[in-house]
Amino acid sequence: MASHNELGAAEAARAIRDKKLSAEALVQSCLDRIAQRESVVGAWTHLDRDGALAAARRVDRGEVASPLAGVPIGVKDLIDTVDMPTGYGSPIYSGHRPGWDAACVALVRRAGGIVLGKTVTTEFAVFFPGKTAHPLNPKHTPGGSSSGSAAAVGDRMVPIAFGTQTAASVTRPSSFCGVVGYKPTFGAFSLAGIKSLSNSFDTLGTITRSVADTQLIRSVLLGASDVPASPPARSGTLRIGLCRTPWWKEAQPATHEAVEKAAARFAKAGHKVSEATLPLEFDQLVETHKAIMAFEATRNLADEYARNAVQLSRQLATILDQGAAMPFAGYRAALDRAEAARRKMSGVFENFDCLLAPSAPGEAPVGLGATGDPVFSRMWTLLYVPSVTLPGHTGPQGLPVGVQIIAPQGEDDRMLAMAAQLEPLVKG
Amino acid sequence: MASHNELGAAEAARAIRDKKLSAEALVQSCLDRIAQRESVVGAWTHLDRDGALAAARRVDRGEVASPLAGVPIGVKDLIDTVDMPTGYGSPIYSGHRPGWDAACVALVRRAGGIVLGKTVTTEFAVFFPGKTAHPLNPKHTPGGSSSGSAAAVGDRMVPIAFGTQTAASVTRPSSFCGVVGYKPTFGAFSLAGIKSLSNSFDTLGTITRSVADTQLIRSVLLGASDVPASPPARSGTLRIGLCRTPWWKEAQPATHEAVEKAAARFAKAGHKVSEATLPLEFDQLVETHKAIMAFEATRNLADEYARNAVQLSRQLATILDQGAAMPFAGYRAALDRAEAARRKMSGVFENFDCLLAPSAPGEAPVGLGATGDPVFSRMWTLLYVPSVTLPGHTGPQGLPVGVQIIAPQGEDDRMLAMAAQLEPLVKG
Repeated sequence: MASHNELGAAEAARAIRDKKLSAEALVQSCLDRIAQRESVVGAWTHLDRDGALAAARRVDRGEVASPLAGVPIGVKDLIDTVDMPTGYGSPIYSGHRPGWDAACVALVRRAGGIVLGKTVTTEFAVFFPGKTAHPLNPKHTPGGSSSGSAAAVGDRMVPIAFGTQTAASVTRPSSFCGVVGYKPTFGAFSLAGIKSLSNSFDTLGTITRSVADTQLIRSVLLGASDVPASPPARSGTLRIGLCRTPWWKEAQPATHEAVEKAAARFAKAGHKVSEATLPLEFDQLVETHKAIMAFEATRNLADEYARNAVQLSRQLATILDQGAAMPFAGYRAALDRAEAARRKMSGVFENFDCLLAPSAPGEAPVGLGATGDPVFSRMWTLLYVPSVTLPGHTGPQGLPVGVQIIAPQGEDDRMLAMAAQLEPLVKG
Repeated sequence: MASHNELGAAEAARAIRDKKLSAEALVQSCLDRIAQRESVVGAWTHLDRDGALAAARRVDRGEVASPLAGVPIGVKDLIDTVDMPTGYGSPIYSGHRPGWDAACVALVRRAGGIVLGKTVTTEFAVFFPGKTAHPLNPKHTPGGSSSGSAAAVGDRMVPIAFGTQTAASVTRPSSFCGVVGYKPTFGAFSLAGIKSLSNSFDTLGTITRSVADTQLIRSVLLGASDVPASPPARSGTLRIGLCRTPWWKEAQPATHEAVEKAAARFAKAGHKVSEATLPLEFDQLVETHKAIMAFEATRNLADEYARNAVQLSRQLATILDQGAAMPFAGYRAALDRAEAARRKMSGVFENFDCLLAPSAPGEAPVGLGATGDPVFSRMWTLLYVPSVTLPGHTGPQGLPVGVQIIAPQGEDDRMLAMAAQLEPLVKG
């Protein structure tokens, strides 16, 4: 048996249910891993060691019987917790104590999950980075904005963590850290208790080490009897669209290799892989996304901008200034372009069950002053389609490079079933 | 000159700018009105007399120069304020102190507006009522969920108040209280710092006594240079669709009279009024709205449901139980029906500049144990179209009955310009 902290969530939950593992031993193993590695990785803003161990002992006493009973989870520090400080990555909220658990935290706790602590986010989930380093090479960024969540899951500190995505904040760090990042269909999970950035795009997502664990946490967040707790086994041929996107030339060879290798393996396994072309005007969608996000961020962060501007990073203040200067007509036109693109997107899927696309421009860049380029996710986030990034490829610097599987809006369960089928092929 | 508390927001702001009125005198006049009437109306959960007077004196000293400088505003107690308790209409949050101003509050304050206090909301903006009574007859409900805001504006305690609408929570109380209620296009205003109920529908709206004041507060909330601070004067013929809706027979004669009288006056003034028919399947949209709202409310209130279920009203607990029992497939199907209806709605507007429709089933019902039926707003909220309810008609019990003007999604500024043109005709 692997060291406990290396277990996946579903695997650990099963071992705990079968009394082959105590929740306390699992939590202690994760805490030990964190104690050993945190000084290098810096994934956490707050750890609740005693609370987590106490919750684990309640599970071991049989007081909790639920799908996640005993499973530790990391919560991005953009997400409220009633018993831990929540800082949103900003000095403005240093020591802030919310009056509630975010809905996602409440749902995880009701299912027996144990919140180990809060993971590092960039400032309000935008660009200004926190302290987290890449677990495989601390000179490199782990990506952002869900930096701590991706690094913690990648480093085997915890099997599941929450992330949020407004541009690329689940997909990119997951690709960099070699983990499975799931950005659901827009609107899928409750955002209650999560700091707003851009109401047209903010999405709660999950970071795990397997598609099976992604489906498990999805079922907990939806809490409906017809959402399965593990991806239904499926076989048969998939029609897969290889979607290089208009930004293919901006990607490094490592990303080209990751995508083309996955495509070749899918084809070799019998799937039908062919090039998917997007409507020509989709190449504007990165700029459209930026415009909507800037306009909305300026309104959503109005209180911080008004009362605490001096504590905002210069990068964020610049974006908010841009949003403040935008005419409303430009924002409305961008919303209309986005909506038109969403309607056209269903046509793209007429010939494909899912798309295969790059997750990020390449390996995680050197330096902790920035978290990488969101270019390969902005369009998918704008289109509201679900995506999951799968690890497998390794670049020339020895760092992971993921690939995205994308499905039509609302088809998350089917996407995860397909991703579970493709996952071993990507891992190779 | 009318008593200061009877002034509209734009009028008061102008008088203050022109030094014909001090902000302190205006605020004092509103506070006097509240002192005189609050024991009957019960519109407020919290008043900040000293803070409001201090803010007014800063305006009078010339320290604030902005479009709303000196204008008092009421804030629905579903909306966070950093300096006042925010209880969301629930005993769970009695005495709760948020760590921020909601974005809408920050924007109003930046524009020089003065938050007088917090107004009564039903429990989490659903059905269970607060203490507010109808200002014209305290045996009748003021409507809900924005009960205190509609009653306070109707009773001349304050010229503007914030409401929120998930089903009918701005339109219905505004119709009952004889004020102008504006439910914007979905997504128009930031919801940061407003308690979530149903992410597919939650909308920040405004309650005023004129369309001019609605446009003023809209321009403050958007803060973009191309959104006018008052509705541009317009003349010329409008093509108006008289839309009785599938629920016409559920309305009382007072509502039939209000709508038909408005239609007759519009026609007499030269506008082209003709019957507007909705696609047949739109009669299902009330049930579709209920299903989506129940499913999402159960997830958004997961923390309260998990940790404080005993403090929820039985009415709310029933809705949350219904939402918990719904299959995900049913929710997804309801979302698809809603989206299909939104796409069809643009066809309805092919022959009309705006629609005229009922605001509520009739006058405000007797009794403070319920806030009235949302049936005449659920569909419009689901369709994401902007609406404004205009007062003018009085029913047999001497209580107001409004009518709704509705425009295509995103056409809020044009809608308010048309509403300003129609407003004197409705008032008669």
